[in-house]
Amino acid sequence: MTDSTPDGTLHLERTVRVPDTVSPHAQAVMAAGCAMLDDRLAHPQRMPALGDAAAWKARIAEMDAAIVTGFAAGAADLPASVEATRIADVDVFVITPDGADSGDDAPVLLDIHGGALIAGGGEACRLMATSAATRAGLHTWAVDYRMPPDHPYPAPLDDCVAVYRALLEQRPPERIVVDGGSAGGNLVAAMLLRARDEGLAMPAALMLFTPEIDLTESGDTFDTNAGIDYVLVNRLTESIALYAGDHDLTDPLLSPIFGDVTGFPPTFLQAGTRDLFLSNTVRMHRKLRAAGVDAELHVWEAMPHGGFFGAPEDAEVALEARKFLAEHLHA
Amino acid sequence: MTDSTPDGTLHLERTVRVPDTVSPHAQAVMAAGCAMLDDRLAHPQRMPALGDAAAWKARIAEMDAAIVTGFAAGAADLPASVEATRIADVDVFVITPDGADSGDDAPVLLDIHGGALIAGGGEACRLMATSAATRAGLHTWAVDYRMPPDHPYPAPLDDCVAVYRALLEQRPPERIVVDGGSAGGNLVAAMLLRARDEGLAMPAALMLFTPEIDLTESGDTFDTNAGIDYVLVNRLTESIALYAGDHDLTDPLLSPIFGDVTGFPPTFLQAGTRDLFLSNTVRMHRKLRAAGVDAELHVWEAMPHGGFFGAPEDAEVALEARKFLAEHLHA
Repeated sequence: MTDSTPDGTLHLERTVRVPDTVSPHAQAVMAAGCAMLDDRLAHPQRMPALGDAAAWKARIAEMDAAIVTGFAAGAADLPASVEATRIADVDVFVITPDGADSGDDAPVLLDIHGGALIAGGGEACRLMATSAATRAGLHTWAVDYRMPPDHPYPAPLDDCVAVYRALLEQRPPERIVVDGGSAGGNLVAAMLLRARDEGLAMPAALMLFTPEIDLTESGDTFDTNAGIDYVLVNRLTESIALYAGDHDLTDPLLSPIFGDVTGFPPTFLQAGTRDLFLSNTVRMHRKLRAAGVDAELHVWEAMPHGGFFGAPEDAEVALEARKFLAEHLHA
Repeated sequence: MTDSTPDGTLHLERTVRVPDTVSPHAQAVMAAGCAMLDDRLAHPQRMPALGDAAAWKARIAEMDAAIVTGFAAGAADLPASVEATRIADVDVFVITPDGADSGDDAPVLLDIHGGALIAGGGEACRLMATSAATRAGLHTWAVDYRMPPDHPYPAPLDDCVAVYRALLEQRPPERIVVDGGSAGGNLVAAMLLRARDEGLAMPAALMLFTPEIDLTESGDTFDTNAGIDYVLVNRLTESIALYAGDHDLTDPLLSPIFGDVTGFPPTFLQAGTRDLFLSNTVRMHRKLRAAGVDAELHVWEAMPHGGFFGAPEDAEVALEARKFLAEHLHA
């Protein structure tokens, strides 16, 4: 049932089933995720008041624990060596997937983790970055950037730019690729805008996985996929407020969708049809194409934000990412 | 409000507004289209009984009149010469947009019109094909194929294949591109499957605009975008039944998504995030990529099936299509 008003607003009631057009594995993951929505919506997680740093830290610890639980089972099996170090005064995990070249001339992936701009550091960063490194099959520097509440914008972005600058001292830009998922997609794109403004070279390629590219969250799928994306149920309003403070959300360094992306490197963009960030992704694809950037879009059937957690479709994402990297990382 | 069951079925209530992330022109088109949904849903158009040919012809005449009304205002302004002719015993419109090369060596677009597999012939075909020809900027052969109720499957497909075969006698395959939108996307892909099976060469490129590539209509966005796509409100169940008769809908010549697309030419695919056929489009993109085909996907923010009817976003679609053609149609 749909009912509409003269300004085009739709009031919808709808039944949406798990489709048989994804793999059986993905169907099982979707069914489990969707079945839990009832309970999640009945007990919404309230975010703390903006000034209550202690409460935020407790909330962020819960978010990190959830990420660790979600990734730990899979990442334990990922064959990679990981070293925790400091580069340019920033915490960085240096990761070498088994079989990847880690020599002085090896290409390097600079990975910026997600986590709603406030979470995903430390152990969560290590696990997510190991997953990103093995997906790409590349020697990886993963930036464990500072975050709110103690370090709001621009500290997280400063850290990403500092590590990118340090990496440029170790590798020519054509041996560097950068990636980010979700909030990491925001930071990695903002990092390239800052890098360009500061006269740094662009890397060989950029990969954006379901990126939070617009902190005003004004895209259409924030409405149309609300409650259909069973992974990302709500807008990130409160964590964005904690990250941005008094800064203008339309500033391109906070919302790269509003920036001038001329000169960006070839870009790979990924999302799913149930993804709350589908609009983010397709809008950024159009923005890049309009600026003359060689940008390619990949959208997976019925996939929510972040993928199906181990289904064959996730392997397809990795396969496409590696194909893209092979085309743009010349030996 | 979302309520979920253990098998992952979601029952949703939602409010969806016209977003400000599309052009003002598109916002106005969306608002007008969405505002009419109430009335359309309150007075659903019943399809005739399958055996009632006279009633179907009356219904199809109404559909054609709606297409003509929708396209006539715009297409009257499209500067092109059009000749109605017969090729291989099939009605064909030969169209030359002003400025396009129509010499004996000129590249040719073979255009297969949409219309739910039962409508869009005659004057509606002429108008839609003139729009497709000017979008591509190419000399065009538009197939006014036979249709139900008098000519169900395989007659429409037979006509498309016959005209493609005739075109191959006039041009080398590298000077031919083929396209189809909606139901035309189904037929043009099925045409290539048939052509390959019959030993005919593949054209230089294929363009699929929001294609009805799966007559089982099993994609997820048939549910998730139901009532959100204000252009295409319902599945095409009845017209598909009229087209297919007793044929198996999973036959690749009826649903090319189930075919072997190995060897298909470079392919351009277009859809919108509100599009009922978004799943069709992204599933076909994945299918083509998995078969090693050079396929590129373009999805527009908040766009319903068929576009915004004259907004700047539609000009962007044409621009991307021409860029794709320039890359694949070598002089």
